[in-house]
Formats: sequence, C-alpha cells, structure tokens
Amino acid sequence: VNDILSVDPRTGAAVEVVGSQTDAGEVDARCRAAARAPRRFGADRAERARLLHAVADALDGRREAIVDTADRETALGRPRLAGELTRTTYQLRLFAEAVTHGGYLEAIIDHPADTPMGPRPDLRRMLVPIGPVAVFGAANFPLAFGALGGDTAAALAAGCPVVVKAHPSHPATSRLVVEIANAAGLPPGVLGVVYGQPAGADIVQHPAIRAVGFTGSLRGGRALHDLAAARPDPIPFYGELGSINPVVVTPAAAAERGDDIAAGLVASFTLGNGQFCTKPGLVFLPVEADLLDAVAALVRQVPSGWLLDGRVQAGFEARVSELGEHATPLAHGRAAELAGFVGTPAVFSVPASAMDGNVMEEAFGPATVLVTYPDTAELIDALGRLPAALTATVHAGAGETQLPALLVETLRDRVGRIVWNGFPTGVAVTAAMHHGGPYPASTSIHTSVGVTSIRRFLRPLAFQSTPDSQLPPELREANPLRIPRQVDGRPTT
Amino acid sequence: VNDILSVDPRTGAAVEVVGSQTDAGEVDARCRAAARAPRRFGADRAERARLLHAVADALDGRREAIVDTADRETALGRPRLAGELTRTTYQLRLFAEAVTHGGYLEAIIDHPADTPMGPRPDLRRMLVPIGPVAVFGAANFPLAFGALGGDTAAALAAGCPVVVKAHPSHPATSRLVVEIANAAGLPPGVLGVVYGQPAGADIVQHPAIRAVGFTGSLRGGRALHDLAAARPDPIPFYGELGSINPVVVTPAAAAERGDDIAAGLVASFTLGNGQFCTKPGLVFLPVEADLLDAVAALVRQVPSGWLLDGRVQAGFEARVSELGEHATPLAHGRAAELAGFVGTPAVFSVPASAMDGNVMEEAFGPATVLVTYPDTAELIDALGRLPAALTATVHAGAGETQLPALLVETLRDRVGRIVWNGFPTGVAVTAAMHHGGPYPASTSIHTSVGVTSIRRFLRPLAFQSTPDSQLPPELREANPLRIPRQVDGRPTT
Repeated sequence: VNDILSVDPRTGAAVEVVGSQTDAGEVDARCRAAARAPRRFGADRAERARLLHAVADALDGRREAIVDTADRETALGRPRLAGELTRTTYQLRLFAEAVTHGGYLEAIIDHPADTPMGPRPDLRRMLVPIGPVAVFGAANFPLAFGALGGDTAAALAAGCPVVVKAHPSHPATSRLVVEIANAAGLPPGVLGVVYGQPAGADIVQHPAIRAVGFTGSLRGGRALHDLAAARPDPIPFYGELGSINPVVVTPAAAAERGDDIAAGLVASFTLGNGQFCTKPGLVFLPVEADLLDAVAALVRQVPSGWLLDGRVQAGFEARVSELGEHATPLAHGRAAELAGFVGTPAVFSVPASAMDGNVMEEAFGPATVLVTYPDTAELIDALGRLPAALTATVHAGAGETQLPALLVETLRDRVGRIVWNGFPTGVAVTAAMHHGGPYPASTSIHTSVGVTSIRRFLRPLAFQSTPDSQLPPELREANPLRIPRQVDGRPTT
Repeated sequence: VNDILSVDPRTGAAVEVVGSQTDAGEVDARCRAAARAPRRFGADRAERARLLHAVADALDGRREAIVDTADRETALGRPRLAGELTRTTYQLRLFAEAVTHGGYLEAIIDHPADTPMGPRPDLRRMLVPIGPVAVFGAANFPLAFGALGGDTAAALAAGCPVVVKAHPSHPATSRLVVEIANAAGLPPGVLGVVYGQPAGADIVQHPAIRAVGFTGSLRGGRALHDLAAARPDPIPFYGELGSINPVVVTPAAAAERGDDIAAGLVASFTLGNGQFCTKPGLVFLPVEADLLDAVAALVRQVPSGWLLDGRVQAGFEARVSELGEHATPLAHGRAAELAGFVGTPAVFSVPASAMDGNVMEEAFGPATVLVTYPDTAELIDALGRLPAALTATVHAGAGETQLPALLVETLRDRVGRIVWNGFPTGVAVTAAMHHGGPYPASTSIHTSVGVTSIRRFLRPLAFQSTPDSQLPPELREANPLRIPRQVDGRPTT
C-alpha cells in the first residue's frame, strides 16, 4: 500500500515499484539536509552557473533513458518528450546565464547623502536566496515542469536547495533525473526528492522549507496553499493551478480565415491530448459563422489518445459528462481501440447567454466549449463573467481595431498573457514571458516560466554603513564581479 | 458604541467624535467605487505623477493643521510630526519620480527568434496595477505610515485605487489627510477610507480588493493575513508585523567606545518613547563590560513619556511585567507626573544562556533587554535561537573583521537589514532600503519602505504577437514614452 508505482498509461498496469512513500523521518532528513547545504551554493554564482550547466549536460547525455522512462510513464510520445528535454536543459542553461550576468540580483547602492529628512547612511541592497524550496512538478510536463523543470531550475538558479515531491504520474522519471543531477556534482543537500502525498504535505509544513513552487490542479494546489498559509510561519506558495484560457474570434476574423482558425483551434485543444494548462477551454464565436461546423468536422478526425494517469482519465470523463448536461455536445473524436487510460476529444457548444459556472470550469483533457454570441453586447457581457485565467486570445480581422481593443480592455484585468491571432498553447521560455494570472490561474504575482521566475525564490537584504570588506562582492564599491547595478539612481553595467 | 473617537493620549480623554464605524453597506460602496475608479488612473503615468505631486503639495499646504491634529491624537510631539510630514510628502514625490521614469514597469521585449525548441513569437511584458488595495496604516507613524503613508503612496504610484482602514489611534488625522488628498484632485474612487475593526475585516475579504498593505502588531496582522489567505480567491497580504531587532556589541567595540554605544542605544530604544518597529529590543553585550552600568545610568535620566493609546499602554505594562519575571530589572526611567497614557523607560538584563522565548518577544514601548555573553560560543548559540527580525546590528571594533563576519553569517538568514556601528531606528526612504524580513518580521518577500515597495502592487502582463497600435505605449516598438526597457536581453534607456 505504501509502494510508489510507475504505471504505463498505455496499459494501465504498474510496470515498476519505484520505492515506497517517504516517511516523516525521511522527509525531515531531506529538509534538514537542504537547510545544511553548503552556503557556498547560494553565494558563489560562478560555481552555481557551472553546476547548472553540468546538470544540463548530464541530462542531455542520458537523453535516451530519460525520454524512454518518461514515455513509458506518461504516454506523451518520444518526439514530444525529446522536445521537452531540450526545453528542460535549455531552461537550465538560460538560467545559468542569468546567474552569471547578475542583473537578477537587483543590486542597488545609495551612497550617503543629505535628504529633506536629514543625512542618509550608505545603503546597499541585493536579492539573496530565500532558503530551501519545496517543488511540486506537474503531471503534464514530466521533464520541463518535472523534478528538474522550471521551478527547480529557478530555485537552484536563485541559490536555493530544493526538495522535490515526485509526481505520482512519473515517479521513475523523477527519480532518474534527480539521480543524474546529483551525479553531475550538486553538493550534498542541494537536491532531494520525496514520494507520496503525505510527504508532500509534510514538506510544505517543514520548518526548514522557505517557499513552495507548485504546478497542478486547483484542488490540490489550494489544499497545499492553505497548509503553507496556516504554518506558524507562513511561507510563499507559488502555485500555477490551471485555467480556462478564453479565445475570442471576432466576426471579421471568422469571415476572413475561419478555416485556419478552426484548424488551429483543434490542433491547440487536442495538443498533448488536451493536457496543457494553456489549453483553450472556452472559444467565443459569432453565432452565424460556419466555424462550428468546421471545428466539428475536424474534431471527428482526431483519434482518441492516452491520458497521463487514471486520475486524469476519471476527472476528464466526469467533466465531459458534466459538460454534456450544461452544453450541447457537438462532436467527438474518432474512438480508437486503445487499452489503458484513454481520452477522446470532445467539443461542446453553448449560447453566450447560457454560459454559467458549470461551463466555466477547466476540463483537463481534449475538450473545449464553443460559446456563440449574437452581438458585441452579449459577448462583452459573457467575457465579464469569466474567471481569471493564464491567457486570453483574440482573433481579429486584418486592420480591425475597435472591437479587439474593447476585448482586450475587458479581458486584461483577469489574465496574465494576451495572445493575438494565435493560440495559447506554447509557452516560450524567455524574459518577456509571463505565465501566471489572478487566482485561480495562480497564487502569485510572479511568473512560473521564464527568467523572471527566479525572483520568486529571492528576498532583499540591505547592508547599512557596512565596511567594504564585509560586503558580498556584488555590493563592494569597486564592483569586482562586474554586475549591473543601480548606483545613486543611475544604472551602471 | 459605534462612535469613532479621537482620543488625546496626554489626558486619556476623547476630544472628538470623528464619525461612526463604517457599516458593511458603506464598506461595499467604497470598495466598489475603488473598482470603478477611472482606468486612466492606472494607465496614464504622467497624469498619475502629477496627481501624486498635487497631493504632496496639498499636504504641505495644510502642514499646521495636520501636525496639530496628529499631535493631539498621538502625543508624538510637533517636531517629530513635522519631520514625519516631510517624509510623507517626500515619499509621494519620490514615488512620482519613479512613476515618471518608468523603470519600475520592468518592461521587457523579446522579438521573434529561433530557439532550440522552435520559433518564438514576439513577446512583450510589463508590470500593471494589481487592482484596488486595502491599506492598514501603523499606529506609530500617523503620517509617514498612516492613511497617506508608505503603503498608500506605493499603491497609488503603482496605479491602484486604495481603501484605507483608519487607525483607531489617529482617526481624525486619517480623515483629514484623505480629505486633503481628495480635494487635491484624485479621481472619484481612487482613495477611500473606512473606520472600525469590522470594516477592516470586511475590506480584506471584499471581492474587489486585490492586495493588502499592513503595518502593525503580529496578532492583528496575522489575523488579517489569515483572512486574506482564506478568501475564495486568496490575495497577497503584505504585512510588516514588528521585530525584536537584535544589536550585538563585540568586546572590542565595547572596549573602544562603550560610552558612545550606551548613549546611542538609550537614544535609539527610547526614541518616540520606544514606539518604533525597528527599536533595538535585544542587545548582546560582553558580560565583563561596564556597558550595563553606563546604559542603566543613562536610562535613569530619561523621563516617562506618552504612549500612542490605551492599548499600547496596557500592552507595554503587561510586557514589562512579563520581562520582570524572566530577566533582571536593571533600571527604569525618571517617572514623570503625567496624566494620560504613560510609559516609563525600562531596561532589563539576562545571561545569554538564560535567554528564552519570553525574553525574545517584542515589547512595543521604551524597554530593551541587555543579554550578556561570556564568550563567542555562547553568543553565537544565543543568536542562533533568535526569531526573524527586520534588522540586526553589529558594533565592531576598528579593523575587527573575524568576529563581525561570523556574526553577520549567523544573522543574515533571519533579517532584512544589517546595520554596522549604528542603530536600526531610522529607515531611509530610498531605493537601496529593505524594510522587511522573514516571518514574523513581515509576511512578504518585498520591502514596505522605499521605491521598490511599489513592486508589491503590480503584476506582470504579457502581450504575444500584438499589433503595435494595440500595445500600451510603454511596449510599442518606437518606445514613444522613452522608458528604460530590456530588448532582446539588452537594457535600453
């Protein structure tokens, strides 16, 4: 009963006993080891950048084993997982570059000065690691948001030791990548892993843990958020909890390129068998457009596919059944005779005026709802009822400005990213990305993807009137490490 | 019973009925008004900077009335309050400059590019206002951390409407400065005020409120933190909750300049009658130093003074009584025959080995505890038991390096600011300041003082493949507003 099993979604059968649930004593040992990890890891940026590169190289060096293991546990397919490993190691190297560059430290120096309130002392401030971080990887990205994924890369880049809670959908993958990373030379205590739901609750509440990174369901995330907030000493809980990702197609766009939009939409909501947090879940279409028929026709050609695990399958089936009660089933995909955990694409439709809370909940898997609107007034009214989301997408006609501007105005307060004439799946790992949004999209004002995600695991530390020799090198007068700093209000590089 | 009274601490008597507790319906109206405040306030930085300057000018123009009212309600004295008003208007103007400069927007542009994961779309990200903010000002800074104080200035600078909960210690001051600010031209809904504890709980839970700024007690702050975390949609709670602020004097420093340190310490812990969140509450001294006698002699000359209100007085008396049970009373100040809410300075001592949890709790008011250590080992052991704090201070001998470095190493993980050869009272409003620390010092990784405090009330918003004309001006290709941006990894100004 305490076994941690690696299950093949293509058969539904356990193929390996990865280990057993980590008990409370072992959890405590992992968290204490993280707290005891060498201070040098947090302080020596050059060494840390070297280690991040070494981990990336080691993961690339074991590409075949990692992709095989992840494919066996998630059925996401080798090509997708190979791309995901590329993203994983790219992320580690990109963050290593940021560590070397040093701009992320937000170093600020204000020399002594007279102010209207009297003399001001010498003040120097930079960001420092927040301390050990608990990371809960996502089911749907076993590599890029798994044990060595975005949150772990960001925390390590910040200089924080990490204790990973292995996702039950891919425990063997988690174990493998952690082993590889540790063998690549991470100092003792810097990267640990625990297994099982009780261990997950334990790490969130462990005194040594100073922040949590989480990607997963609203229900699971909220439960852990509440544990983090109820600690004797509450800690930041950075949760990315999923999203309905509205897409709006204007009448002009539907008229101009309805077929392209239909094709793009079906590709987007069935990508990875619909298991993306940025999957378009509500698509607003003009009621008179032929788009519904075009989407339905395309969906009927998409075959069933595997879902990540039995819970995802059960959740998807329940959600599709609920949707069937509150929206009109329009089409479903080509049922394939597959064993294991299977999900078949499904598309529903509902008039904008009838769109209620039952329709506005995420369906994790290959389902989407087409919401038809007769006019702008009903469209805007419906958009005003939407919950917050990671993304909102606008498809506008060529040169169309007024309606799209109104749509963005209506949507911008409740989303983290606005996509034009595209689809929200595909989250680029770059500085200008924001992956997050008001609750329930996330529980944080910071992004969980891209270089600025490192900020989550840092806190400021100020030094007042401190002798140069006692300052961290990043704040010494001569700037020996040549990092970008703001000095007396002016940027220096 | 629902009256909001302005009480004179010098007599303990109510001198004015400021109004009555804001009822639930009025709270709802204020929060809705904040949510309806003109979008232009959040979008037009030039207009917002102009408004911040106008508010600062208007407050300066009513200097006498404001200082009189605040002095009558807090007994902090006109000179101190005049300085505080200077700080308040300086803060508003400094933040207006930051708004104009635009660097705080963290604008980042990544043009389309090829990546190892395939082509990347055009992505542009900036920070946008988080939405209406609830602000709970501090008792001890009726102006600089009151209704128009740091949190309000930061939220307004960010572009967020504010609903202030007036502090019960200074409701008339809160009402006055809000009236002055609104008369200076703030758009409708941008600045509201509510009165009474139930209204405070209501605003934290109101759906329109998107973040909370709080400065006050651990107990009150924790209660509101828990309300914010338990909302259907949890919101950030930025609480600054108080602190023990350890000061360590090395044997070399004590030998070199013991008298100066004693004088500085007594001045610091009795400043404003000890009602500073950065008041030194635990002072570590070598056991053989004459410092204890010097401090005791100085304390005996400091007269009693008024405390902010009856609750502060009751709390201070209870805490002094508790300290008397767990530490040795060393000296108390010169009891003056004052009416009203009075606190008399008190200093205690305890050996480092006997320093326990009872001694390590903040006493809000003019009391401090001298902790004597026989050697470095006992000192470091005691420092290792300290709770997190806003500040830690080190007094070192001239040229002394080894012991101070060890002290900083021991303290840095649990504080937000390290002060050398000075005292922690006095928090400069500047970019390099950090005012915050691990819990219980604060509930946030962001500062509540200085320019970077604006970051708390902003969230990122990313635009993908968006036509130039549909972008906010700050993100348009030509950079028409000439703000600093990072473009394709390089800073531009």
